[in-house]
Amino acid sequence: MNFILKDENAVFYECGFSCDNVVFLKLGSEAFFITDARYTTEASECVKNATVLEGDRRDLLKTARLLIRKSGVKALCFNPSEWSVDAYARLSEKLSIHFQKKPNFSQEKRIIKTQGELEILRQAALFGRDAFTRFGEFLKRDGLGMDERMAHFEAESIFKYHGQLELSFSPIVALGENAAKPHALPSSKQLEKGELVLLDAGVKYRRYCSDRTRTSFFDEHFNFEKRQVFRDATQQKVYDTVLKAQEAAIKAVKVGVKACDVDKAAREVIDKAGYGDYFIHSTGHGVGLDIHELPVIGARSQTIIEENMVFTIEPGIYLPNAFGVRIEDTIIVTSSGAEVLG
Amino acid sequence: MNFILKDENAVFYECGFSCDNVVFLKLGSEAFFITDARYTTEASECVKNATVLEGDRRDLLKTARLLIRKSGVKALCFNPSEWSVDAYARLSEKLSIHFQKKPNFSQEKRIIKTQGELEILRQAALFGRDAFTRFGEFLKRDGLGMDERMAHFEAESIFKYHGQLELSFSPIVALGENAAKPHALPSSKQLEKGELVLLDAGVKYRRYCSDRTRTSFFDEHFNFEKRQVFRDATQQKVYDTVLKAQEAAIKAVKVGVKACDVDKAAREVIDKAGYGDYFIHSTGHGVGLDIHELPVIGARSQTIIEENMVFTIEPGIYLPNAFGVRIEDTIIVTSSGAEVLG
Repeated sequence: MNFILKDENAVFYECGFSCDNVVFLKLGSEAFFITDARYTTEASECVKNATVLEGDRRDLLKTARLLIRKSGVKALCFNPSEWSVDAYARLSEKLSIHFQKKPNFSQEKRIIKTQGELEILRQAALFGRDAFTRFGEFLKRDGLGMDERMAHFEAESIFKYHGQLELSFSPIVALGENAAKPHALPSSKQLEKGELVLLDAGVKYRRYCSDRTRTSFFDEHFNFEKRQVFRDATQQKVYDTVLKAQEAAIKAVKVGVKACDVDKAAREVIDKAGYGDYFIHSTGHGVGLDIHELPVIGARSQTIIEENMVFTIEPGIYLPNAFGVRIEDTIIVTSSGAEVLG
Repeated sequence: MNFILKDENAVFYECGFSCDNVVFLKLGSEAFFITDARYTTEASECVKNATVLEGDRRDLLKTARLLIRKSGVKALCFNPSEWSVDAYARLSEKLSIHFQKKPNFSQEKRIIKTQGELEILRQAALFGRDAFTRFGEFLKRDGLGMDERMAHFEAESIFKYHGQLELSFSPIVALGENAAKPHALPSSKQLEKGELVLLDAGVKYRRYCSDRTRTSFFDEHFNFEKRQVFRDATQQKVYDTVLKAQEAAIKAVKVGVKACDVDKAAREVIDKAGYGDYFIHSTGHGVGLDIHELPVIGARSQTIIEENMVFTIEPGIYLPNAFGVRIEDTIIVTSSGAEVLG
């Protein structure tokens, strides 16, 4: 398959290196990594299985078009969500070949992880887990009265570990009723004793992402362990339901089942407890170079689960204006079930 | 003009509010802010001069298409770099109206700032300047032996000011020969006495960006002032040349001149000193809601400078494998010349 890529992670997957200005071309048996003068030295040392070419920083497509024309290929695949209307117009102008739209073809290639990738993802998850521990200790010591904005700032700092790790995404730190919004923005709400703390965060290790969520009760024994004791009976019931749903979904992970059946396992527990209307998102998503990859673990996903897929299991219940609970782990599909990371 | 927008800042400019999932439509005398359930409450309180509508979180375009059809408009402008090939295909499918490509029409509207915007930009620049001072004091105290990665991490923290400010962009902290790369990534290189430190950083205040660069000599008197004394004669000569070029460009800013003439004023000073080949980028760029806006202050820019435009003046000289110097300020064009911010 001949194809063209712009996305940093998609390019990295092909050749083991990437940068923020690159076009990658696969034309027959040849591959080309086109970048500008800022990156060619490093690219020449790191790119595998592709020829590094230097193009004009503002017009890498000029070099790409020349190569496409010279190669004589008749068709070229591209991901239509990766290209803006004007970039695509510049790419395809007066090239009389067939540009074939292939949504997410790079993510499809990446859906089964190699042993090398699995090792990196395991390590990323360990770094992520350690950051949860460090941030938990910080909140236990200094959290009382701290507002969400400050807690978010501190979470970013602590997860970055003095600049040694990058973040998978900007952490979500939600307190009390703000945890009822699955993607709350940090506010001036302050952390009080007896309140819920929801933390959804991850780090990158060698470009691969970790992803985890914990919901915890804030008092002098605060921690991000899965076993949590709440003062309020409804909170305890909701928490236990979400935990049970997560365990059921993890147990449902098996080679050969459909992704929608994994989703169903979580959803049934929550439905049965009477909170079905408050589980308002999918059960999980693939994780790898991108924080959201394939497979989708949702009610309509017909994807067959295969060994060495990596995805999250993250059911949640969100009671508007009251509180929310989400529990998330990243798992690897094994021949016998699921390996929970971190 | 009828138009459709997706870009957060472009939408904010139209109605004073924005979020990360929005489509904005201007159809004749009516305007619509389409978002999903997560944002409709806040949008209804904050959006000015537009009707807030709730759409399906994953398919806001469905609502937009309905409105376009109902309105009976014959043509709709869009920015082709704002839309991916597939989003545009979904938007335009079976709508028999003319979709008119208008590159950067929102940035063109925003090129002259209002008095209100100027006040915010002045304040953003003051916050940015204060962060330079704080980071300078930090490096003076703790910088010796610190590597770039750590310095970058600390710069992010200090510029965010305990989570009270957002960053205009991830700061560039480059030490010694790494400053010769205009957009160096943080490395394990350590800060030594007698070395150059280049810092390019800014913060956002009420969504508007600050932008500034200083290059300084590291010793026990370290600071980010413009007056810098270097041990090495070449470094001093290069620094003084860049500063002179910057001053010349600021002096060349006048209502009615062309942007390329401002660029030329800086370039001539550097050419004359014999470093023309090492000034490898434009002299400046507009600053506002986006960190890079119009006008471009470059050798080919025919834009006529007008009162209340806001842009950077940032000449630089980069000697490969040796060192680099860049000095940048953001200015407002006034009736009599330039007001340097911060």
